[in-house]
Amino acid sequence: MPLAPGEEISAEELQLAARNHGMPLEALRHDITPVGLHYLLIHYDIPVVDPETYRLTIGDRKLSLDEIKALPSVTRAVTMECAGNGRALLEPRAVSQPWLLEAVGNAEWTGTPLKPLLEGADCLEVLFTGLDRGVEGGTQQHYERSLRPDELDDAILAYGLNGGPLPPQHGFPLRLLVPGWYGMTSVKWLTRISFLDEPFTGYQNATAYRLRQAEEDEGTPVTRIEPRALMAPPGVPDFMTRRRFVEPGPTRLEGRAWSGFAAIERVEVDTGDGWREARLGEERGWRAWTYDWDATPGEHVLACRAFDASGRGQPDAPPWNLGGYANNAVHRIPVTVQNG
Amino acid sequence: MPLAPGEEISAEELQLAARNHGMPLEALRHDITPVGLHYLLIHYDIPVVDPETYRLTIGDRKLSLDEIKALPSVTRAVTMECAGNGRALLEPRAVSQPWLLEAVGNAEWTGTPLKPLLEGADCLEVLFTGLDRGVEGGTQQHYERSLRPDELDDAILAYGLNGGPLPPQHGFPLRLLVPGWYGMTSVKWLTRISFLDEPFTGYQNATAYRLRQAEEDEGTPVTRIEPRALMAPPGVPDFMTRRRFVEPGPTRLEGRAWSGFAAIERVEVDTGDGWREARLGEERGWRAWTYDWDATPGEHVLACRAFDASGRGQPDAPPWNLGGYANNAVHRIPVTVQNG
Repeated sequence: MPLAPGEEISAEELQLAARNHGMPLEALRHDITPVGLHYLLIHYDIPVVDPETYRLTIGDRKLSLDEIKALPSVTRAVTMECAGNGRALLEPRAVSQPWLLEAVGNAEWTGTPLKPLLEGADCLEVLFTGLDRGVEGGTQQHYERSLRPDELDDAILAYGLNGGPLPPQHGFPLRLLVPGWYGMTSVKWLTRISFLDEPFTGYQNATAYRLRQAEEDEGTPVTRIEPRALMAPPGVPDFMTRRRFVEPGPTRLEGRAWSGFAAIERVEVDTGDGWREARLGEERGWRAWTYDWDATPGEHVLACRAFDASGRGQPDAPPWNLGGYANNAVHRIPVTVQNG
Repeated sequence: MPLAPGEEISAEELQLAARNHGMPLEALRHDITPVGLHYLLIHYDIPVVDPETYRLTIGDRKLSLDEIKALPSVTRAVTMECAGNGRALLEPRAVSQPWLLEAVGNAEWTGTPLKPLLEGADCLEVLFTGLDRGVEGGTQQHYERSLRPDELDDAILAYGLNGGPLPPQHGFPLRLLVPGWYGMTSVKWLTRISFLDEPFTGYQNATAYRLRQAEEDEGTPVTRIEPRALMAPPGVPDFMTRRRFVEPGPTRLEGRAWSGFAAIERVEVDTGDGWREARLGEERGWRAWTYDWDATPGEHVLACRAFDASGRGQPDAPPWNLGGYANNAVHRIPVTVQNG
């Protein structure tokens, strides 16, 4: 069971869960997440944007979409994860989008590197403003977040996804993409890039997306993606409970692992008799892994965890914080092995 | 609030809500629903299918995907809605996928008409079997449902969506599409078409998808889509509550209406002073509608409802049944009008 026994989610959380969708974990079998299976977290409404009249404002300049597409282009597989992934597994949990484990995706993004567009700008922070607008913390606002210039070395202004145009829900016609950072950083429907001499104190930087133990804490900002391995659930599910049923015999377990801090160095799997090293596959955004298991009849709990080259790993128990961010606790899947 | 006050959803319902996703209602502004915004209800896991080795079995014949694509093709906009749309608004409600109102989409499907492929088959029912497999009602099964031959006049074997191939989550490489019927009819990842001399008594026809008042009722089958109009929520949302905030003054309300029984004849809107007729737009799958409202400061409830040429309309209160199917009660949106 994903929540603590007897725990339930509220009507407000359900409204969010009905519109923001995760990647069903069987889609871990796809190297590149197909459009429509990548996770989505959309704070306000998805804007409808006319690409003909669209302009991006950068400081004093205005660029059309064609002008941006004429700049040098790069295509790169990037794993994106929501900072709130795993929130609904915390206890107590923040009331917000109630993610279990599926707020992730690995897409091939096409765009132009941001860095050359910032040349000559002398500022403390760069502010990215989206066209999407709504109310949070009692204030009507555009979605906007800032970064320091040195945090933008790998950033891309993306207009393509998996070889096609950016779909509306991923920020059409243009979004920021900051590889390695949780998804809230990669502002969608980008309309303006501004240069600030003082730290940005808007809602998404100063109030939301901070690691806090109590309301009165200033907290620390949520930044890069903690390491995580997830497993494609083996066998077949029960529709209602999602309990997994696996046939006895040799079973290949597979999944993907990623970290926003450094390359994945090791993935381990526990099928009930301790942690063993999995085989690592190709890295393309995230990194594929496999593990051969001889499934014996009975009840089992399968687990996986990742370690990266920065020395980071995954905790056994969820790391609690008030906003329910960055929970990268070990993935465990209960399975029943029996003849189908 | 979508649920009855104080009502909450369970861990099992959340697991379903996290993987099956609705169409955020602002996407009603798109004539054709972009890939990734169309609703999805997937009973088991999304299969990974190799299109090269894929074969469709029809009675004694086996057809490759290329052979199916070489048959006459048709492209058609079709509105699809989940039979469980509105389930979470019922009280008490069935424990299953907890849809609010967003389990709908309008896509342009490409495929070959089914009817010529059934010629010469003398049977009572045609059974459609998917590659997806799981446990429901305690039995491991492929997803499969039957129809009578006379119910298949408009049916298509679809291999394309919105001008591209069928995405994995919509049934790649081939699915049944039965225009006008609730989505459970349009079997995805179609692997076999069988001809039956007796009524099919499998789970999805005989147990699930029946309108019942009590467990012991035999009930009647869920079939065609009841009429419904939905409104793109005006103004901007509060992230957490999804409450809408609209600026005072002339406001164009807009939405779409559809019915699986007959053409939409009339849409009505109530902004607080009774039902008024909306302007109907183009029909392309669903039918567009607009209504000009002069928004005055204060609290309002906006409502819309559709009527079709068969005389069907929408009830004010949800029509209750045990499985939570076919709830087409009037759509109401509370909004606050104030300066932004």
